[in-house]
Amino acid sequence: MRVEVVNTGTELLLGKVVNTHAGYFGQELFKLGLRIQRQTTIPDGDEIREVLEECFPRTDVILITGGLGPTSDDITREVVAEMLGLDLILDESILDTINHMFRSRGYTPSKSNDRQAMVPAGATVLENPNGTAPGLYVPANAEAGSPHLFLIPGPPRELKPMFENLIFPKMAALVGDDAIPETRNFRIYGVGESTLASTLEPLLEPIADLELGYCARLGEVDLRLIGPPEAIEAASVVVRSKYREDIIAEAEDPIEEVIQRLLDEKGETVSTAESCTGGFIAHSITNASGSSRVFHQGFVTYANEAKRDLLGVPEEVLTQFGAVSNETVIAMAEGCLRVSGADHAIAVSGIAGPTGGSDEKPVGTVHVAVASKGEDTFAKRYFNPVDRLSFKMRVTRLALDLLRRRLLGFPLD
Amino acid sequence: MRVEVVNTGTELLLGKVVNTHAGYFGQELFKLGLRIQRQTTIPDGDEIREVLEECFPRTDVILITGGLGPTSDDITREVVAEMLGLDLILDESILDTINHMFRSRGYTPSKSNDRQAMVPAGATVLENPNGTAPGLYVPANAEAGSPHLFLIPGPPRELKPMFENLIFPKMAALVGDDAIPETRNFRIYGVGESTLASTLEPLLEPIADLELGYCARLGEVDLRLIGPPEAIEAASVVVRSKYREDIIAEAEDPIEEVIQRLLDEKGETVSTAESCTGGFIAHSITNASGSSRVFHQGFVTYANEAKRDLLGVPEEVLTQFGAVSNETVIAMAEGCLRVSGADHAIAVSGIAGPTGGSDEKPVGTVHVAVASKGEDTFAKRYFNPVDRLSFKMRVTRLALDLLRRRLLGFPLD
Repeated sequence: MRVEVVNTGTELLLGKVVNTHAGYFGQELFKLGLRIQRQTTIPDGDEIREVLEECFPRTDVILITGGLGPTSDDITREVVAEMLGLDLILDESILDTINHMFRSRGYTPSKSNDRQAMVPAGATVLENPNGTAPGLYVPANAEAGSPHLFLIPGPPRELKPMFENLIFPKMAALVGDDAIPETRNFRIYGVGESTLASTLEPLLEPIADLELGYCARLGEVDLRLIGPPEAIEAASVVVRSKYREDIIAEAEDPIEEVIQRLLDEKGETVSTAESCTGGFIAHSITNASGSSRVFHQGFVTYANEAKRDLLGVPEEVLTQFGAVSNETVIAMAEGCLRVSGADHAIAVSGIAGPTGGSDEKPVGTVHVAVASKGEDTFAKRYFNPVDRLSFKMRVTRLALDLLRRRLLGFPLD
Repeated sequence: MRVEVVNTGTELLLGKVVNTHAGYFGQELFKLGLRIQRQTTIPDGDEIREVLEECFPRTDVILITGGLGPTSDDITREVVAEMLGLDLILDESILDTINHMFRSRGYTPSKSNDRQAMVPAGATVLENPNGTAPGLYVPANAEAGSPHLFLIPGPPRELKPMFENLIFPKMAALVGDDAIPETRNFRIYGVGESTLASTLEPLLEPIADLELGYCARLGEVDLRLIGPPEAIEAASVVVRSKYREDIIAEAEDPIEEVIQRLLDEKGETVSTAESCTGGFIAHSITNASGSSRVFHQGFVTYANEAKRDLLGVPEEVLTQFGAVSNETVIAMAEGCLRVSGADHAIAVSGIAGPTGGSDEKPVGTVHVAVASKGEDTFAKRYFNPVDRLSFKMRVTRLALDLLRRRLLGFPLD
C-alpha cells in the first residue's frame, strides 16, 4: 500500500514552523509496516489541486494536513469535494460544536467558521476535541480515480490525538492482517557508514529477503535490518560477530542511556572534567532522565588555573606538557576521581578551533582520559578537524563511548 | 524566480530525523526576496529521477539534499549526470581530500568513497570542510531543459555552512543585486511572536513598502524588516523604542556572542553553577570562539553534596528551602563567584522532569540567580513546563539573557 503525505502551509516553507508531521506519521505508520513514499509541502492556496491531481493516480492513501481553517486560502475541503464531484453538506452538529467552542472561550462565532462545518457527501467526520475544524476521511473512489484521503488539521496538538485515536485504527484496517515485517536496529560506534556497508554487505548478501538501512551521525551509525524474523536473526549473528565491542545498543538507545543503565547495574557513578567540550559531556549525560543517580558533579576547567585549582593538575605538568596532552588529561581525570568521589571520571582537553592550533597540535587535536577506581587510567590523542560545535559533539560521543567500553570490560584502545 | 527543494532520505520519511532543511532554506532565501514554492521528500534510491523529471519544466532552481553519500542508494549525482547527458569525471583533488580526511581520523579509505569524488562535467564543486562528500552546482542547461541545480549533503552541520558560504552567494547572484530587498534583523528576547506582531503591526502599518517576517524559537523571536532603506530605518526607530531592553542584537548574533562581546569590552569574566541545565549553559558560552577570554571555569553541581562541597551552599539552606529555591541559587551563584574569582556568576536549579515534580514545585519549575562583584544578587523563580531537553535549552537562554541585562545595566526583573 503506497502512502503519501501532503502538507499545506506557507509558514512551513518560510521556516517559521518546523514540519514535524511527516516524521510523526512516518514513525507511526512504520508500526503497520507502511512507509511514506513521498511527502510534499506546498503553500496555502491553489497548489493543493495540482498536487492532488499528481498524487491520485500513483498512490493508495494520502494524508493531507492543513488547509481546513476559516481563512480564504484554506481550501482543501472545497478542492477535494470538487475533484471528486461530491456535494458539500452543512453538518449542523459540527456547527453547534464550533459555535459552542467559540462562545465558551468568550468569542463571537464568525460567519467564516461555517465553512468548517461543511462535509463532502460520503465522508466520515473525524472529531477534533482540540480545535474547531474536524478532520475528514474520504474513502477511495474508483469512479473519481481517487485514493483514500485523510484531511487533517495542521496544528500538532490537534493532529496527533486525531491521528492516534481515529486515523491509525482506520489505516490498520486498510492494511489488514498482513504480516508486519520485523525490524532491528544496531547502533554502532566508530565505524564509518561506508566501511560498515562494504564489510557487511558481502557477508549478508546470501540472506534472503533482508533489507538494510543506514543512518550515520557524529561517529555513530544506525544499521537497520528489515525482513522476516529468521533473516533478521541470521543477520544479527553476523553483525554481532563483526562489531561486538562497537555495538552501543541493539536498539535506538542514545549512548547516555546505555551508560546510565550500565552504571545503574553496578551502582556506580561518573564525574566529568572538561576543557574543550565546555560542558557538553555533562549536558549529554544529564539528558537521560534519572541521571542524578549516576552523575553527581562535573567540572568545566577551561583555564589552566581551573585545571590546577579545582582538579589538582600539577603546574609542572601544564608547563612541561601543555594543557593539551596525555599527561594533563590523566591528571585531570585522576583529580576529578579524587575530588568528586565518583567511581569513574572522564577528562578531555583539546583545540576546538577555529584558532589556537599549532603545527604540533593543530585545530582538532584532543586528548581523552578515562580513570576508574582500582584500574589503570587510559589516555589517548585523537584528531577531529571539524567545525567547533561538531568537534564538541564528536569528542563527547568519543569520550562517552570510551566509558561504555570501560564499563563493559572491553579494551579502550 | 521559482525555487523548489527536494530532500532525499529514507530516515526523514521514517521519522528518524526531523527535516529541518526546508525551513532553514526558507528562512535564508526570504532574505533574497525568494520563497520556496514546493518541497518534496523522497526515500533514498530511484525516486529522485521521477521527482526531478517533474520539477525540471516548472522551476528555475532546485535545492537537492542528500543522496551524495558512499552507499548504493546514494545516487543523486549519477542520476543528475545521466539526465543532463553529462560525463562523470573523477576529481583527483576531492579524492585526495577524502582519503586524507579518513586517514587523519585513523580510518582506511574504502573504495566506495571514490564515487564521492565524481563530478558531472561543467559542474562547480562546493567544498565541504565538514564531511567527505562535496556539494555540486550544475548551472541551468537549456538543451537538457534543466534548471539550476544545487546538490547538497544531507547532514545539517555540512549543509548549513555550505549553504551560507557557497550557495547563498550564488543564489544572490542569480537573483541580481537590484531585485534583492534590504533587510534588517532584530533578535528579541522574551516576547511572544503574536504579542510582538499585535504590538508592532499597528505602529508600522503607515510605513510604505515594509514587509515583516517572524521566526520564533526558545524564547527568542527574530523580527525581520524587509523593504527600502528609509522604511527599514523608520521601522527600526519604532522597534527600538518599544523593545530597547529586550533586543539581543540588531543582527543574527547568538546571545553567547553578544555576551562575550560585552564581557570583552569590560575585561570581565563569568562563571557558571548549574544544576538542572547539566552543563548546557557552559556549553553555550563556550560555543563562541574566543570564549576562553571570558569564561575560565564552570561547575555542574547536580547533587546536593556537590552544591555544598564545591560551592559552599550551607547545608541548612538546602534542608530548609530545598535545592530548588531562590535561597539555594543565590548561595550557588555567590559561592561560584567566590570560588572562581570571576566577575559574574550564573546559577540555576530546577526540575527538568519528566519525574521529580511536586504540587509545590511542579516539573518545569526553575530558579535562576545572577551574582556580580559589588552588586546585589538577583534571583527569581520561573516556570517552563516543556520536555527535558527544551527545558535545558530555554533555561539556558533565560539565564544568558539575564546576564546580558546585567552587563548592560538594565533591570533584571
